[in-house]
Amino acid sequence: MRSVPVPLGERSYTIHVGNGLLAKLGDHCRRLKLGERCAVITDTNVGPKYADLVVRTLKMAGFVPNLITVPAGETAKSLKVAGECYDQLAIKRLERKSFVVALGGGVVGDIAGYVAATYLRGIPFVQVPTTLLAQVDSSVGGKVGVNLKAGKNLVGAFHQPRAVLCDLDTLASLPERELRAGLGEVIKYGIIKDAELFKRLEKEMDKVLGRDAATLMNVVARCCTLKADVVVADETESGERAILNFGHTIGHGLEAVSGYGEYLHGEAISIGQVAAARLSVRLAGLPEKDSERIRELFVRAGLPTTLKLPPKKRTALFDAMRVDKKVSGGELKFVLVKSIGEALWGQRVSDADINAVLNSIVV
Amino acid sequence: MRSVPVPLGERSYTIHVGNGLLAKLGDHCRRLKLGERCAVITDTNVGPKYADLVVRTLKMAGFVPNLITVPAGETAKSLKVAGECYDQLAIKRLERKSFVVALGGGVVGDIAGYVAATYLRGIPFVQVPTTLLAQVDSSVGGKVGVNLKAGKNLVGAFHQPRAVLCDLDTLASLPERELRAGLGEVIKYGIIKDAELFKRLEKEMDKVLGRDAATLMNVVARCCTLKADVVVADETESGERAILNFGHTIGHGLEAVSGYGEYLHGEAISIGQVAAARLSVRLAGLPEKDSERIRELFVRAGLPTTLKLPPKKRTALFDAMRVDKKVSGGELKFVLVKSIGEALWGQRVSDADINAVLNSIVV
Repeated sequence: MRSVPVPLGERSYTIHVGNGLLAKLGDHCRRLKLGERCAVITDTNVGPKYADLVVRTLKMAGFVPNLITVPAGETAKSLKVAGECYDQLAIKRLERKSFVVALGGGVVGDIAGYVAATYLRGIPFVQVPTTLLAQVDSSVGGKVGVNLKAGKNLVGAFHQPRAVLCDLDTLASLPERELRAGLGEVIKYGIIKDAELFKRLEKEMDKVLGRDAATLMNVVARCCTLKADVVVADETESGERAILNFGHTIGHGLEAVSGYGEYLHGEAISIGQVAAARLSVRLAGLPEKDSERIRELFVRAGLPTTLKLPPKKRTALFDAMRVDKKVSGGELKFVLVKSIGEALWGQRVSDADINAVLNSIVV
Repeated sequence: MRSVPVPLGERSYTIHVGNGLLAKLGDHCRRLKLGERCAVITDTNVGPKYADLVVRTLKMAGFVPNLITVPAGETAKSLKVAGECYDQLAIKRLERKSFVVALGGGVVGDIAGYVAATYLRGIPFVQVPTTLLAQVDSSVGGKVGVNLKAGKNLVGAFHQPRAVLCDLDTLASLPERELRAGLGEVIKYGIIKDAELFKRLEKEMDKVLGRDAATLMNVVARCCTLKADVVVADETESGERAILNFGHTIGHGLEAVSGYGEYLHGEAISIGQVAAARLSVRLAGLPEKDSERIRELFVRAGLPTTLKLPPKKRTALFDAMRVDKKVSGGELKFVLVKSIGEALWGQRVSDADINAVLNSIVV
């Protein structure tokens, strides 16, 4: 097992990466001195696989868990589902020292974390991410939230978990498409902050896709460390944390105009990162060949790098990008890369440049 | 004008108490260096009176205000209304530096503050309370939230305003019942923290009810100072801040079982404080005569001190109290007073004691 500390003062916590961790959840929670009552929030995909085990380990550790199952998929990240969860917590009489366990992928982590952030003005929560994407990205850093019709994550909070347990065993049964989608974020860390990781992924992509245990351990722990570094440097995204949004402005826009659910998040940001790399060639001096290496790595990960977008939907895409959170003074701000491993945030990009790059990826 | 500082590090702000402040809102916001776009959230009672003036002063100061009007009354503190506000903010393209102005009473402050706390994971907001209750209590300290069917303020956040403007002119047209309800919180400050204020209120209640300008200035500024002291000592209510909940456990329970809207908040907590004073006689050594002084002061303020509660509703009241936030380990925790001006928080109280006290106020 690897332990990655996230030192944030009184909000510090540890990310645990390893095998067989689900069964140890109860012990971990007991060490955190959490209240007796808790809610395990999961979804209709993950619940049938792991909820029994999680409820059992919590009970054995002396907790009183209540299981709440939300619909699988991005559509669960709504105010409506949050409202249903609140009602359950109130019925089950969860108190300020009670806690929420988020058992599932990024969607479950975001909705469960948001519910924990706002119920009784905030109660503790523990992230138990069961997808690659959630393990390397969304479960770490405390960003939680729900979507509005107008865009993704427009409502939310910063609420750090009390612990993150990444059980690599859960990746074994992850559908192929979900594993690949997670690689969208894994590759991102290489592009924005770690040229070595990028090179390693170029070399070991087949091992990753083959779910080699040692390789996954290394990759997940490395991504968590990178994410933790960024979060510690800038917890509430007033500066550097923005680099994590590489490829996300266009990615989120795509998710919004296509209706949440058509693209997995990792797929949308794969396209977004290819576009952001091309913007980086135009505006930040990224060598053309590195932009091409980026595109090729996404292709090798089996992720989409081109886009079907009817011309009349392009205006909707721009509108969706403009309601995204990364807008200031009405202007779109992008994360660009000077080189693989070195990102710049807050870069102004003209609509003309965005259009030119979109033209190059729309098929 | 009086200025009351609330020193909370990077979340510090100033409460301004005085006359003619609404017209100066634009200047105040400019000094805070807030973004251009903003939303003025008000309700159907307050909007017709003051929204024009507020929108004008903001425009004159160079801002682009959007008016959002929510229904008047406690029922507006719902996830549904919050959702409608979010949609408006997204449509009007409010950004992270944009801000929300809460123009109205406690309900508007709570819902507008909650929307500001959660939209884009938190944007700035300015409180412009127009009722006595909001000026002395809910606008200060950053507690924001909405109600669930199961109880009041069960969903919320801690989100400090960037400034509070208490324009005493708005009290002149306040309906009599609302003024009296505000006195429910004013008297509370005397009971829990300021015996001098309590005595002054005993002497000057007629002047207060007559809306004497100098008296109101003194009382509002004093209450804001007391509240600020408590909030600074314990921003997120891990300890002392709980004393502000004196009378609120039973009060919130009453509001829940009677359906939000029958009692004004200040009325419900008036009954709750009379009950809490009697619990204090039984359990905390409060002299019987001081409990009686407390009851009399609420009577002089024209507030209810007895309760019509059908016997079969009493179970519902206990249930409602138990889902309140002030519960730990399943046990109800009360704020009691040893003497007028000296409160104890986190006091365990048995159901038997609560029942005995309820028997004494139910008519």
